[in-house]
Amino acid sequence: MSLAPPPPALRRILGIDPGLACTGFGVVEQDGKRLHYVASGTIRTTSGVAQGDLPGRLKIIFDGVREVIARYQPTESACEIVFVNVNPQSTLMLGQARGAALTSLVASGLTVQEYTATQMKKSVVGHGLAGKPQIQAMVQRLLNLPSLPGPDAADALGIAITHAHAGGSFAALAQATTLSRKTHGVFKRGRTY
Amino acid sequence: MSLAPPPPALRRILGIDPGLACTGFGVVEQDGKRLHYVASGTIRTTSGVAQGDLPGRLKIIFDGVREVIARYQPTESACEIVFVNVNPQSTLMLGQARGAALTSLVASGLTVQEYTATQMKKSVVGHGLAGKPQIQAMVQRLLNLPSLPGPDAADALGIAITHAHAGGSFAALAQATTLSRKTHGVFKRGRTY
Repeated sequence: MSLAPPPPALRRILGIDPGLACTGFGVVEQDGKRLHYVASGTIRTTSGVAQGDLPGRLKIIFDGVREVIARYQPTESACEIVFVNVNPQSTLMLGQARGAALTSLVASGLTVQEYTATQMKKSVVGHGLAGKPQIQAMVQRLLNLPSLPGPDAADALGIAITHAHAGGSFAALAQATTLSRKTHGVFKRGRTY
Repeated sequence: MSLAPPPPALRRILGIDPGLACTGFGVVEQDGKRLHYVASGTIRTTSGVAQGDLPGRLKIIFDGVREVIARYQPTESACEIVFVNVNPQSTLMLGQARGAALTSLVASGLTVQEYTATQMKKSVVGHGLAGKPQIQAMVQRLLNLPSLPGPDAADALGIAITHAHAGGSFAALAQATTLSRKTHGVFKRGRTY
């Protein structure tokens, strides 16, 4: 069961807020200046797999993002640039989770634009120092939702909204990057050993 | 063009030494106590794609590892556990690269066992403080290579050798993990927003 792809004039944007325990996703559709909510939720790796089984947890993120793409047929994607943590081990873990999510997006052929949390807050709330409740409230208002979205889904929807606000310029740029990547994709082998 | 899968009694192990600029790979075959060299090389993301295009670089790693798997048909895999860097931004980058490599391994259905560099040095050289030249020399000797392998490929071959030395117990354990993951794979959706 999946949505039909949007008509050519519409952009359907998948926003991702990556994390090892919980990756938020949000899908919005842009029709001219109007934004419509399509879907949102979280991909969790906190049960059903041993917490020490990092490859297994990354596979859940990879498969989860792929399932979201298959179901909601986005035309482009955007991903939050994560902050480095005070704990280097946590930074490494977060990096690996983000690597799995980004890989899933590009492996599905989607363009990916990256935004910092500050860029997202400026775009959604109007200033870069907004807290979680302000983001949730503004996302609810911008998408005309009947209730407050959860914090992870709100961040992911916020990233999708930021990308919608940024207009088609990034999308065109990313498309060009994809093409040159396909043409010159480097995969060197054949060193003696 | 790809190798035929090994006979059921043989283990063919893919070792990975992940990095954002250069990911080393090495494939060895274990026949009882004997180890045979199959292939090795590097996957580079340093040309053909903008260096700032992180999703594009992660895609090269993901596709490269997948191509190595398709070509050499390993039966299991092992990946080096990377160290956190003094620079948090580098740690994050390394984490994302490792996430892409691990994701490619598990998305191909391979079991993955993780080893630290110290475990690899102990297994290959005999003590955990070995330098790169010692690893290269011992890998050359253990696999009966005509010349010294490059440092990245030597590390990846070293990881594969470590996994071969560790015996089948890890493989059996990893297999069990994969099965339970498939059965209980968690992908929660359906929060209101």
